[in-house]
Amino acid sequence: MALKTVEQYLESLHKMKCKVYVLGKQIHNPVDHPMIRPSINAVAETYRLAEEPEHRDLVVTTSPYTGREINRFTHISRNTDDLVKRVKINRLLGQRTGTCFMRCTGLDGLNAIAATAYDLDQKFGTEYQKRAEKYIGYMQENDLTANIGMTDVKGDRSLRPAEQADPDYYLRVLEERKEGIIVRGAKAHQTGSLNAHEIIVAPSTTLRKGEEKYAAAFALPSDTPGLIHVYGRGTFDTRDLEGIDMGNVRCGKYATLVIFDDVLVPWERVFMYRETELSGVLVSRFAAYHRQSHGGCKSGVGDVLIGAAQTIAEYNGVANVSHVREKITDMVHMSETMYACCLAASYEGVETPSGVYAVNNLLANTSKLHEGRVMHEMCRLLQDIAGGLVATMPSEKDFQHEEIGGFLKKYLRGVANIPVEHRRRMFRLIEKLTLESRDLISDVHGGGPPAAHRLVILRESDIKGKAQMAKTLAGIE
Amino acid sequence: MALKTVEQYLESLHKMKCKVYVLGKQIHNPVDHPMIRPSINAVAETYRLAEEPEHRDLVVTTSPYTGREINRFTHISRNTDDLVKRVKINRLLGQRTGTCFMRCTGLDGLNAIAATAYDLDQKFGTEYQKRAEKYIGYMQENDLTANIGMTDVKGDRSLRPAEQADPDYYLRVLEERKEGIIVRGAKAHQTGSLNAHEIIVAPSTTLRKGEEKYAAAFALPSDTPGLIHVYGRGTFDTRDLEGIDMGNVRCGKYATLVIFDDVLVPWERVFMYRETELSGVLVSRFAAYHRQSHGGCKSGVGDVLIGAAQTIAEYNGVANVSHVREKITDMVHMSETMYACCLAASYEGVETPSGVYAVNNLLANTSKLHEGRVMHEMCRLLQDIAGGLVATMPSEKDFQHEEIGGFLKKYLRGVANIPVEHRRRMFRLIEKLTLESRDLISDVHGGGPPAAHRLVILRESDIKGKAQMAKTLAGIE
Amino acid sequence: MALKTVEQYLESLHKMKCKVYVLGKQIHNPVDHPMIRPSINAVAETYRLAEEPEHRDLVVTTSPYTGREINRFTHISRNTDDLVKRVKINRLLGQRTGTCFMRCTGLDGLNAIAATAYDLDQKFGTEYQKRAEKYIGYMQENDLTANIGMTDVKGDRSLRPAEQADPDYYLRVLEERKEGIIVRGAKAHQTGSLNAHEIIVAPSTTLRKGEEKYAAAFALPSDTPGLIHVYGRGTFDTRDLEGIDMGNVRCGKYATLVIFDDVLVPWERVFMYRETELSGVLVSRFAAYHRQSHGGCKSGVGDVLIGAAQTIAEYNGVANVSHVREKITDMVHMSETMYACCLAASYEGVETPSGVYAVNNLLANTSKLHEGRVMHEMCRLLQDIAGGLVATMPSEKDFQHEEIGGFLKKYLRGVANIPVEHRRRMFRLIEKLTLESRDLISDVHGGGPPAAHRLVILRESDIKGKAQMAKTLAGIE
Amino acid sequence: MALKTVEQYLESLHKMKCKVYVLGKQIHNPVDHPMIRPSINAVAETYRLAEEPEHRDLVVTTSPYTGREINRFTHISRNTDDLVKRVKINRLLGQRTGTCFMRCTGLDGLNAIAATAYDLDQKFGTEYQKRAEKYIGYMQENDLTANIGMTDVKGDRSLRPAEQADPDYYLRVLEERKEGIIVRGAKAHQTGSLNAHEIIVAPSTTLRKGEEKYAAAFALPSDTPGLIHVYGRGTFDTRDLEGIDMGNVRCGKYATLVIFDDVLVPWERVFMYRETELSGVLVSRFAAYHRQSHGGCKSGVGDVLIGAAQTIAEYNGVANVSHVREKITDMVHMSETMYACCLAASYEGVETPSGVYAVNNLLANTSKLHEGRVMHEMCRLLQDIAGGLVATMPSEKDFQHEEIGGFLKKYLRGVANIPVEHRRRMFRLIEKLTLESRDLISDVHGGGPPAAHRLVILRESDIKGKAQMAKTLAGIE
Repeated sequence: MALKTVEQYLESLHKMKCKVYVLGKQIHNPVDHPMIRPSINAVAETYRLAEEPEHRDLVVTTSPYTGREINRFTHISRNTDDLVKRVKINRLLGQRTGTCFMRCTGLDGLNAIAATAYDLDQKFGTEYQKRAEKYIGYMQENDLTANIGMTDVKGDRSLRPAEQADPDYYLRVLEERKEGIIVRGAKAHQTGSLNAHEIIVAPSTTLRKGEEKYAAAFALPSDTPGLIHVYGRGTFDTRDLEGIDMGNVRCGKYATLVIFDDVLVPWERVFMYRETELSGVLVSRFAAYHRQSHGGCKSGVGDVLIGAAQTIAEYNGVANVSHVREKITDMVHMSETMYACCLAASYEGVETPSGVYAVNNLLANTSKLHEGRVMHEMCRLLQDIAGGLVATMPSEKDFQHEEIGGFLKKYLRGVANIPVEHRRRMFRLIEKLTLESRDLISDVHGGGPPAAHRLVILRESDIKGKAQMAKTLAGIE
Repeated sequence: MALKTVEQYLESLHKMKCKVYVLGKQIHNPVDHPMIRPSINAVAETYRLAEEPEHRDLVVTTSPYTGREINRFTHISRNTDDLVKRVKINRLLGQRTGTCFMRCTGLDGLNAIAATAYDLDQKFGTEYQKRAEKYIGYMQENDLTANIGMTDVKGDRSLRPAEQADPDYYLRVLEERKEGIIVRGAKAHQTGSLNAHEIIVAPSTTLRKGEEKYAAAFALPSDTPGLIHVYGRGTFDTRDLEGIDMGNVRCGKYATLVIFDDVLVPWERVFMYRETELSGVLVSRFAAYHRQSHGGCKSGVGDVLIGAAQTIAEYNGVANVSHVREKITDMVHMSETMYACCLAASYEGVETPSGVYAVNNLLANTSKLHEGRVMHEMCRLLQDIAGGLVATMPSEKDFQHEEIGGFLKKYLRGVANIPVEHRRRMFRLIEKLTLESRDLISDVHGGGPPAAHRLVILRESDIKGKAQMAKTLAGIE
Repeated sequence: MALKTVEQYLESLHKMKCKVYVLGKQIHNPVDHPMIRPSINAVAETYRLAEEPEHRDLVVTTSPYTGREINRFTHISRNTDDLVKRVKINRLLGQRTGTCFMRCTGLDGLNAIAATAYDLDQKFGTEYQKRAEKYIGYMQENDLTANIGMTDVKGDRSLRPAEQADPDYYLRVLEERKEGIIVRGAKAHQTGSLNAHEIIVAPSTTLRKGEEKYAAAFALPSDTPGLIHVYGRGTFDTRDLEGIDMGNVRCGKYATLVIFDDVLVPWERVFMYRETELSGVLVSRFAAYHRQSHGGCKSGVGDVLIGAAQTIAEYNGVANVSHVREKITDMVHMSETMYACCLAASYEGVETPSGVYAVNNLLANTSKLHEGRVMHEMCRLLQDIAGGLVATMPSEKDFQHEEIGGFLKKYLRGVANIPVEHRRRMFRLIEKLTLESRDLISDVHGGGPPAAHRLVILRESDIKGKAQMAKTLAGIE
Repeated sequence: MALKTVEQYLESLHKMKCKVYVLGKQIHNPVDHPMIRPSINAVAETYRLAEEPEHRDLVVTTSPYTGREINRFTHISRNTDDLVKRVKINRLLGQRTGTCFMRCTGLDGLNAIAATAYDLDQKFGTEYQKRAEKYIGYMQENDLTANIGMTDVKGDRSLRPAEQADPDYYLRVLEERKEGIIVRGAKAHQTGSLNAHEIIVAPSTTLRKGEEKYAAAFALPSDTPGLIHVYGRGTFDTRDLEGIDMGNVRCGKYATLVIFDDVLVPWERVFMYRETELSGVLVSRFAAYHRQSHGGCKSGVGDVLIGAAQTIAEYNGVANVSHVREKITDMVHMSETMYACCLAASYEGVETPSGVYAVNNLLANTSKLHEGRVMHEMCRLLQDIAGGLVATMPSEKDFQHEEIGGFLKKYLRGVANIPVEHRRRMFRLIEKLTLESRDLISDVHGGGPPAAHRLVILRESDIKGKAQMAKTLAGIE
């Protein structure tokens, strides 16, 4: 098959039997649940691109594993052009969804595993690469979506995994069996775990000697017995239930806590186990890919923020006011900065020993560190331009109300030639864009917190070499 | 009476018969409505202070009008000490409520009217001062809360009031009658209009000759026939309905659109009408007071943000990490900057011709311009310190659930000695503090948008004098 | 006498016999040396204020020690009004000199010693207060200027004083004699040491048990035998020698390294010795006063920067361009922020056990932390507004040159109604204001580096109390 | 010849007979003048690269015009790889010189002319391309350096060229003759005009109908009769004369005002004349190239700032202090941001109709806007890390002085294992790097002021398209 249509994607999700809890109740058809569907719609756009003649060239490529056409969201990067395309696809999808489209984490994990499996085999004589390639081929042939199970719940951040009050605060291998390993733990912030067919699991930190049980990477179908998805609350979750005032009428985002209640992972789906020495490499590769991914999608979301700023300024009659234009210019500058940094990280990508291409780590982290600041800043500027109705617009039901609807339609109109309904919708979109918790927190913490980006930036820059430059110019031999 | 207890305040609200719509339905007991009560609780703290022996001295003073003890929230400032106390009371209440306590706008309006009524009488031979003093005495004697009806809906911002497609986009006097004026229009962003006994109305902009019908200032009980309050949606409005996951367990905030459907205002409650020449003075005085008010309360809310940052850092086990301490230091710096600027604005206050004291306008706007940036920045830093659970914490119902509650209690604990329930609550508070739309938008737009603060800053600074200083030092005669 | 005229001040300096080296040569009349005189002119303005009827009230007060009229630059603060006046005087002098006027450090040191001598006597039964008061009386009666010898050269910053490769890296007492103590060491960054009659010495850091020899505070005339002043280079030092292109035609600044080559300090001029326990208090008090001082003077210098921005914008024909006005607004905001913070620090000052008033340490450091950022930012904005001629203006000699002077006068004119000479001068002033090393580095490091301000800010804010506020609102008992 | 050695470059300059004035005097051997030579040394590095085997591949390419090996500083970009190499060469040279190496402006002008000559010919049937190619071939064959005569002196910025009080405020054609045109005017900020063999002149603004006399682009040898170079003062100009305390012991920068005193330009060196319609295209192309150039060199200079920060932190014993590491991380982030943005601008370059490659204008301006902020910010951070000696270090002569040299060597040492002379030199370098007016002002104004970058950013971003994205997500048809 190799390329799924949007319809086939939805159908394939419908067949899955995930164990899911939402607001204290188990639900059985997440695909059609109003609090989950908008997010599935966002993923669906990654499939839709492949159906659109004008975007097919961008998103469809040929697998070096299978020789067949695949969606780039299952592709392993083999050159800088592959890396650059990731960014451009992400910007396009960010513009189209106005939020996360959730198919990057799995792709980033797949690439990190592909590159590291080779290194593991070289160093330890293992057979991970063969397993990984088989798994990647399976993902590609079925055009599957995966999310990454990265972030452990971590308990006390000042303690190592094995020192925790509860040994399960970092996901660990409980037992080795003939057919595979039994794992226990929980992975937090699982964006769109019910939109994905697969969950790819990796350690969330560099592990040390003695922590072998924590050094496991593997993949599982999202509905594997023992996996429990618990929906995390967001600022607008019940708006989706109400079915009104959703702001973004197409797409949304959520994240779950995924609990691994002693789950069996077959050996052929295990891509690392016990090799603590390379755990840091795997983590770091994933992080680098994911920080690059963010720069693409967030510049796309940034475009939507800019577009909303321009639109509401027009609706309010202030689009030509100089300070509004200056603020929009600042927003463009911020959006382009993220884009430029992660484009550069891609063009300056490097080949790993496996032949898989990695992004330039310094530049990818440079991009992500901007994101954690400028997305909030862009939201603030958009709120500044839009005005107080972002926080005080009555509900859609009030607009439809027999008695007071007329008053609202009279009084909440802006410039004369724009229907009040357009203005109402734009304010609701701005509310959603600038106050949706999952998006805003992800801008800061997606792919690791800013402090982590900073450590990479310092480590990857050749400070010693720069010190030598200064000494030479100062005349210090 | 002169001082109401909290209980008396609630009782007095219960007696009112406001016409209110919430999410498309008329409601009849707003005081006990779960989406409104948290906000009334916040106002109630202004009454509670007067009941507390340790704060009585701070919040209770003697009225120069009645000679009786009154709450400073109905007091007209007569010296810089009065101005300074406003700031200190506000910081205390911000710390205690973690949000807006909604009694400043009315106070600020009352002060602006007190100062301007005198000027109007001097200039036009009117009798506004007598009316204003009588009204202030009434407010003081009954310890009432007022909110300010300032912001008109404005339609097309590039047009003057009379040029709009609909002449009602700015509230206007429709008709003069023997018993008073009939007014029509709507006032937006009416924070806590149902928590207040009175609404004090003033123009939202400086008016010109020919716009006399728009130059009206007056007061009305909030349940005057013809007034319609339409509740505006916020990010967490339905959480209040659910009664769980509210974050701030005490207080909240909302704002309404208040529609004036041809309402009669008796002449004794009219404090300006037709005198466009002084409309700008009234607007500017209110704005200055209100921008000062904000610096006090927001530094108090800032303290809560800092306290939440420190607490969650402890719960996560990272309180001693250097970058966390640096971020908390930055947050303290921001909070103290707002506080210092509005303290200085108060200490440097000046007497108006009426004897009412006005704040230093330049410094009050200096404070407000910081607020519109640093509150968002503090929220971002708090989110940065707290981590992803701000956006992904499951609901309280999940924690109570028979089957999965145990998993959540196991996995979402932080450091060992803190109950998981405390950590859950703190994350919910942080979600509320950093993502409540009414607070965040008010940080930017309360008391007018940043562009308005900037205009005042430029106008109030003696640029010509500064140019002369530079010329002198350059040796230019 | 008690109040010196400018003339008497200059005369008194002429009588001193300081040992001074400038650019590798000993000089014997520093007062008239072109590289030093502009800085003396700046100090002279502190005397001139007392001669000016319109400023006499601001700068002259009565000594509680002598009962006679004194200049506030020798006054010990006894109430918040004294503290506030310091700020207002400093702003005025910053506006008038466009640089440092160098009489604060001594005043700040005197106040710190006055407050701490009392505490020392209380704790150790010493007689420092008597000595200090006598010395203060002497300073007041003779209207003297002092500078503070604070910053030790420090060698390796990771080591304590006694651990250094050279024990003299922190100034220390070498020997106790009957007539006094012999001290050795060097004090760096001695701003205007040749403009001052006295140098007041204090430790630069909190000392511990075992470091008693370093715990000395005392005062000496600047020309005491054994003191050597070595002039430190600045960006424009030789412009003063050339006598052209000085930019600021009135005032300047420099700093020296002062070497203490085994100097005798008589006992009556020793205000602390061996009491390490209170060394930190002394250091901290000085730092707080001095960080407050900076907020005043720098807001005054900020006014000059703003004035220069406005003037050059007019000369270039761009004063009404919107982005220029926005930048000037930002500059005003920055200047007023420093002013407001240190005003608030003064109004919120507190009495020490000695009766001497101390500033609010938290707010004073809040001000200083802004200074270290915004002064550079204001300079950048001024350079942005002014344009490239800040860096490419030919010399005054070129303008006077027979052959090319005409070309320069033709081509370097801006708007038609302003003489080219005015524009030339304004560009030179801007060059001086934004690139004079002593001013720019002092903005960051004067009164200690930003990292020190941050430590105070964190320490002085009640983080634990704020954490409690957050817990209460979250419903955590 | 096609490639000059450093020696040949110096020799070729020696042969030129420029008319030069420095500090009011005509000088006749600028090449060996101490205030000019450091800047020539910087240009010389562009020649040296071609002599170094390890950099030859980077800097030497083949001319499509002559088929011979040329230095890329005379190369016209024919693909994105050419554009990328410009950035990488510039970063390398910025690291090596710590300042401007002044060979970009001519290169950028040459590229802009190459692209625009073609368009002019297409539109107007002229023969500019032939002339341009011949001239480029000449530059390449002789490996010449050119600077760009762009910025007119402009007089009153609110007036058009022809409206000025003096018609010569914008360089103009005075007369057409058989052999060429006679031009009059002056070009400001001519960085390194005496280091260049040629000056390439272009209009500084988009011209309109009626301003044909101002629409001239051409090239002249720098020593053409009638050209007068007047040296502009910088912060450290006379340090070079002293020959000590220069900071950067290798390289420097200066700029002149170049006066065109009725100079004849032969027709074959005229590349545009009277075609106002395309003047804006020429200006904009030059600006885009030059803003890209800046991102490369400034990230290199940024590396030197970072290296100086690290080195002085080590010399002071604070390299491991957390806030120092954070500041250095911030500096790396800033430097990489400029680099990433201009790399992206290059990789995303586009072919013009002529076949010449242009950079992505939006991304090049994104880079430059960062530069105007972050270079100053990096300087501030470096000053913060280094400490007060940046402004108070005595002169080298003091260190050599018989009597006080010993004191200075004793007291101004930092950590024990570093010679005091190294520390002295590093402080001098930091003084130079962070306070050299020509560099700092160029960071802001080189390639046009920030306001110009902002206009391009707004213009080049598809705001209308972004608005459509927002409308779609809001459900607005």
